[in-house]
Amino acid sequence: MESPIHCFQAALKRRKVDAFLVTQPENRRYLSGFTATDMNISESSGSLLILSGDPPFLLTDFRYQQQALADTKGFEICIYKKGLLDLLKTELPRLGIKRLAFEGHYLLFQTARKLQELADMLAIELIPITGLIEKQRTCKDPGELALIRRAVRLNEEVFIEVFKSLRPGMTERQVAIRIETLMRERGASGPSFETIVAAGPNGALPHAVPGDRPLVEGEPIVIDMGLVLDGYCSDMTRTVVLGRIAQKTRKLFRLVRKAQLAGIKAIRPGRTGLEVDMAARRIITEAGYGEAFGHGLGHGVGLAVHEAPSLSFRNRKQLKPGMVVTVEPGIYLPGWGGIRLENMVVVTPEGCELLNSDTTFLDI
Amino acid sequence: MESPIHCFQAALKRRKVDAFLVTQPENRRYLSGFTATDMNISESSGSLLILSGDPPFLLTDFRYQQQALADTKGFEICIYKKGLLDLLKTELPRLGIKRLAFEGHYLLFQTARKLQELADMLAIELIPITGLIEKQRTCKDPGELALIRRAVRLNEEVFIEVFKSLRPGMTERQVAIRIETLMRERGASGPSFETIVAAGPNGALPHAVPGDRPLVEGEPIVIDMGLVLDGYCSDMTRTVVLGRIAQKTRKLFRLVRKAQLAGIKAIRPGRTGLEVDMAARRIITEAGYGEAFGHGLGHGVGLAVHEAPSLSFRNRKQLKPGMVVTVEPGIYLPGWGGIRLENMVVVTPEGCELLNSDTTFLDI
Repeated sequence: MESPIHCFQAALKRRKVDAFLVTQPENRRYLSGFTATDMNISESSGSLLILSGDPPFLLTDFRYQQQALADTKGFEICIYKKGLLDLLKTELPRLGIKRLAFEGHYLLFQTARKLQELADMLAIELIPITGLIEKQRTCKDPGELALIRRAVRLNEEVFIEVFKSLRPGMTERQVAIRIETLMRERGASGPSFETIVAAGPNGALPHAVPGDRPLVEGEPIVIDMGLVLDGYCSDMTRTVVLGRIAQKTRKLFRLVRKAQLAGIKAIRPGRTGLEVDMAARRIITEAGYGEAFGHGLGHGVGLAVHEAPSLSFRNRKQLKPGMVVTVEPGIYLPGWGGIRLENMVVVTPEGCELLNSDTTFLDI
Repeated sequence: MESPIHCFQAALKRRKVDAFLVTQPENRRYLSGFTATDMNISESSGSLLILSGDPPFLLTDFRYQQQALADTKGFEICIYKKGLLDLLKTELPRLGIKRLAFEGHYLLFQTARKLQELADMLAIELIPITGLIEKQRTCKDPGELALIRRAVRLNEEVFIEVFKSLRPGMTERQVAIRIETLMRERGASGPSFETIVAAGPNGALPHAVPGDRPLVEGEPIVIDMGLVLDGYCSDMTRTVVLGRIAQKTRKLFRLVRKAQLAGIKAIRPGRTGLEVDMAARRIITEAGYGEAFGHGLGHGVGLAVHEAPSLSFRNRKQLKPGMVVTVEPGIYLPGWGGIRLENMVVVTPEGCELLNSDTTFLDI
């Protein structure tokens, strides 16, 4: 199998681009293996300069030099002292770059403006390109799938352990801290997003922040959790109840579960994200809860926890084998709470395969 | 005292700007009190549209509606369904905006381009402005200082507790997990950056990632930790040794401490960041370790853990009362390890006040 970097270099040749400046952190890791993370877009740990031929370059500062050398293979590491643009000023002419592409979706306006000034000075044509590496990243190779499976498995392990320890009176925050601590103790670099533990009415907020609300018997508790293991993400939601399950909860739970299974059944190569979303949404809409399911059905997962493709009305492109997506319908009723169920699947030539192995659903 | 938002509105009037689009997350919180955080620059939880008169607007999507209402006072909350730009298309003309400013340092190239197209269509003049709110944020008011003091105090509490539990054989990762768990258990929303625990030779990397290296008696261990409490950050570094302290460690430790005290002594209104950096750096350089201190002396801390002003050769502007900065000289020797000591101070009319209260330094 061709390596990501060679596949990408071939794409550059086809587009007659001399070099591509990679600033997006997951794209950087995907192409280079460089494991450093960025604190935010203004505090980058490095960029790649990929030419259509070898060697590719990793541009970083002295703080990351050792890590860059240890993580990458075949890359030439260039250290800048006065920032990326200052280094590019000498490197671009030296390498004979005439057409330079950059990631328009991951470069700040201000940086792009300075880069444009530099390009003008050096008579270089600057080309914004969006989503090219992201598109390559959507289809996972076997090595990536193995890492995603491990991340999913660890996530389930942590969930099961924490689930067993849930007791009325524990606060949402305590549960979330327990989950994130356990993730890290078991080898994850951290959660892939801020863990959601939303008890009772808080479950009506799809992005609830865990607070001081205690778990109460009989109330649905939405737990949405994911972790990063060796760079790859998992994402899973369970809705659980301590004690007796009320009739309404049971009914809504079954409805969401039915929608989830319909969504999973609809996934196969050739289907669009919109079609899969509709297959699950129809179940909820026909039961009269269409308005209460206010988000898309799912999203891709890989080096980023939210990546292409999405399963929503916004995505009219066809699914392909190797894509990994979540399937996470939900029903949110202000004042009452919410039910969300989320599993991950990988698209196969014939349909899809469930990546979650557990059966940690309410037994109802 | 004038509120941040009114002070900012006055600045807009002076610049004859009709409205300012605030996308930077800490600036958004500073002006509005909206506590939502962004997963990354591509997944925003909302933006502000500040006019020179009231009311200011908070633009967000349905997921954050409840939180927006709960967190803000005097703001009009506008919910977008198809994204920010789609909402602006109707709101900008409705509000009679002719000159719109945006944050050139926190808007993606691609978004800025679409915003420009929209502005052209609506005959609106678009003005990139950089660092205006950040500049206002550098001088903390008494309420902010109180929050920073709390964050510093909690950070010390956590450090002391973890420090007492350190034993040879514990891994860097275990210590880091313990620190971050305790932070959250004590009320922090999380660490303000990834905790650094760097044992022995790993201490030579200023940005070391905690790994499986065990703590060993006699080796210096660099612990750099900070937390976020009610939105405000702390940042502190200690270098500790388990067991007997070698002569070399003692010598370098004393040198770094001397440099830190010289830096703190140099801080007062009117001094530039460069001058303060030099005051500390001189000590280390004169002792022959200038090359081993490869970063600036410090940085501002507030809603962001790294913000203006910096104490480094890059900052030739004068310090002012109310600014909060770290003072963190270090010596890094590849193969051996590192020593870094970091405290936070607030600039006062006469000089500066140490925000750290503990004396958790090696007693040497």
